[in-house]
Amino acid sequence: MARIVIKFGGTSVADIERIKNVAARVKAETDAGNQVAVVVSAMAGVTNQLIDYVRSASPLYDLREYDAIVSSGENVTAGLLAIVLQGLGVPARSWQGWQIPVLTDNAHGSARILEIETAELSRRLESGEVAVVAGFQGLEPERNRITTLGRGGSDTSAVALAAALKAERCDIYTDVEGVYTSDPRIVKGARKLDRVTYEEMLEMASLGAKVLQTRSVEMAMKHGVRIQVRSSFVDLPGTLVVDEDEIVEQAIVSGVTYSRDEAKITLRSVPDRPGVAASIFGPLAEAAINVDMIVQNISSNEKTTDLTFTVPRSELERAVSVLEKHADEIGHAKLSAEEGVVKVSVIGMGMRSHAGVAQTMFSTLAEKGINIQVITTSEIKISVLIAEEYLELALRSLHAAYGLDKD
Amino acid sequence: MARIVIKFGGTSVADIERIKNVAARVKAETDAGNQVAVVVSAMAGVTNQLIDYVRSASPLYDLREYDAIVSSGENVTAGLLAIVLQGLGVPARSWQGWQIPVLTDNAHGSARILEIETAELSRRLESGEVAVVAGFQGLEPERNRITTLGRGGSDTSAVALAAALKAERCDIYTDVEGVYTSDPRIVKGARKLDRVTYEEMLEMASLGAKVLQTRSVEMAMKHGVRIQVRSSFVDLPGTLVVDEDEIVEQAIVSGVTYSRDEAKITLRSVPDRPGVAASIFGPLAEAAINVDMIVQNISSNEKTTDLTFTVPRSELERAVSVLEKHADEIGHAKLSAEEGVVKVSVIGMGMRSHAGVAQTMFSTLAEKGINIQVITTSEIKISVLIAEEYLELALRSLHAAYGLDKD
Repeated sequence: MARIVIKFGGTSVADIERIKNVAARVKAETDAGNQVAVVVSAMAGVTNQLIDYVRSASPLYDLREYDAIVSSGENVTAGLLAIVLQGLGVPARSWQGWQIPVLTDNAHGSARILEIETAELSRRLESGEVAVVAGFQGLEPERNRITTLGRGGSDTSAVALAAALKAERCDIYTDVEGVYTSDPRIVKGARKLDRVTYEEMLEMASLGAKVLQTRSVEMAMKHGVRIQVRSSFVDLPGTLVVDEDEIVEQAIVSGVTYSRDEAKITLRSVPDRPGVAASIFGPLAEAAINVDMIVQNISSNEKTTDLTFTVPRSELERAVSVLEKHADEIGHAKLSAEEGVVKVSVIGMGMRSHAGVAQTMFSTLAEKGINIQVITTSEIKISVLIAEEYLELALRSLHAAYGLDKD
Repeated sequence: MARIVIKFGGTSVADIERIKNVAARVKAETDAGNQVAVVVSAMAGVTNQLIDYVRSASPLYDLREYDAIVSSGENVTAGLLAIVLQGLGVPARSWQGWQIPVLTDNAHGSARILEIETAELSRRLESGEVAVVAGFQGLEPERNRITTLGRGGSDTSAVALAAALKAERCDIYTDVEGVYTSDPRIVKGARKLDRVTYEEMLEMASLGAKVLQTRSVEMAMKHGVRIQVRSSFVDLPGTLVVDEDEIVEQAIVSGVTYSRDEAKITLRSVPDRPGVAASIFGPLAEAAINVDMIVQNISSNEKTTDLTFTVPRSELERAVSVLEKHADEIGHAKLSAEEGVVKVSVIGMGMRSHAGVAQTMFSTLAEKGINIQVITTSEIKISVLIAEEYLELALRSLHAAYGLDKD
């Protein structure tokens, strides 16, 4: 008998029939003698509809009201799943964030979970009742207003609940069968990984793989929560996200990911003096624009430098207008902005102990005539910015070059 | 400067454009220096959709989960209206039932409001903030689970809030222009009433006029809350629902209403002995079937009696099966059930001091050849059960006979 947390995403609870399938899976776990807490998302499409309502209500909206509105979808799914479970003879009740409560900070729209008060939940799990928890939502410190955890926040709800309940594992049911070496829609040879480390998963999540919310992986790593990513629609083992120790034979490269949500800004002939980076990135940070890859080159003139960096595509226009407002302080000669770029990354724990991983990437891309515009690296990943038209070619070539293709 | 409560029904907040119209009306009240609490329903259609989900989830559903699910529509509207008001420069926040809290008993699905804790709400109203309150919902005594007040419960939320806040008046905005002497779709001469007493409104509400939830009128009467029923779409004075003292010239009959939701059951040759009524109506009450009009006649045989009564049309099948299960105890010779009946009622405070009101009804119907199947009366109303095919004729004839037609 184990205590487990199971999470179902929006496509897994998209209608009553699918909720009934979910209930059958939950019942299989309780029949096996497990104590089960289930975390659910809103029915597919509901949260987007609510966000559309908010945006058309007012372009500048109060995030506290946004949270009160967009959290409602999860309440519906949680109640419905509880009813279906009861109909199958499984004792169950729904829990909204404020009822447990799931305490968060007051960063409305992207709150962080501080604590989950699990005493009552634990007592009921022990009595055999299934806890059906509305994901994505919490309660701010004054305990009056609802918070939400940001898009994909139900993953974080599930992992945080698993940590607080000291659950044996946290199963994330979704519409893919697990974590893949690359996007199977582009790379035909992509394989499902049996295991992946927290660190790799974290890089994959933040580099474009949409399987898990980045924050949920951070939290799992911090608390040692074993995550299994698996399909709601196919009854097969998925991918285990675990500590490095649990992986016996570590691949050098585990995956090749990409992100289309990239735009590039280049500032030419910026005076090369202390404080110039601050004069650029300070105003962007104040405007809450997330700057990602940054490179600085010597320009043709020795007293100036060229700076290139990337921002999310949706923020490009705003970023340019912020920089133009601060043009006098920055003192650059020319600003150019470009949308047609993508970021391609290779990720693997094995990089730390293997030389030549970067070289394989660079030479593979060079062979195909793909120009690398920006490079950034970390201990376990290498990312490059390339022209969007080469995306598919780059992914397939790198996947093959690192020996990731299916037999 | 006054403190007022305004309530908007589902059709008044059916989409963002209408919510913007509602916000403009609210702003007009705050611009006039009023302290405003707004109670909102779910967008038209949303609550029905949620109820459909619940019913298809399981035929036997937990009312606590039902409440958690169906209350979510109001949360969305409240948040959206708060955002739109803020966009107009009007300080506002949304309040869900548990946030205020609106404390109710634990009769899930049709809870009664016990108390509304208004200290914080009052403080904010005084500071100029508009309170946008999600109608229809409350919090049970243990303060953990959501309750709902039954269909049309937002009217009750508004009146209860007006009483708790000691508001000067409670404006109920809806899709009709006020309370009419009869249904204008059937009776062309129907007039909007300027004023109507609580007692008359109560009879009208319980006898089929769908303008206000019965319970909201009871509560207004108890606490002396002045209600104004008016249109969201036409800027005209509506109908004031007030104490009898406020009405100078009292009409004898204020309105002619009807209800199609009637079905008739007749039990023939029931043994005429003490306890027989209990043997019939006891089991029906246990099955939560609401019995309305009851008449008992002497049957042809002196030792037996005939009993006729009405139940809601949707409950007819269930009622018959309950009675058949108890046939041995009741001992009737024959049971007949009929759906094609309607209840027509005339209502008026003036009846108490005028003779002949009933006679006018009976003779008017007789002149048109309409057979009266059952009669029930109270101090201020007379109801008759007639064949459904005569409904329109009966309404128009009675409306004219009591001098209610427009000039």
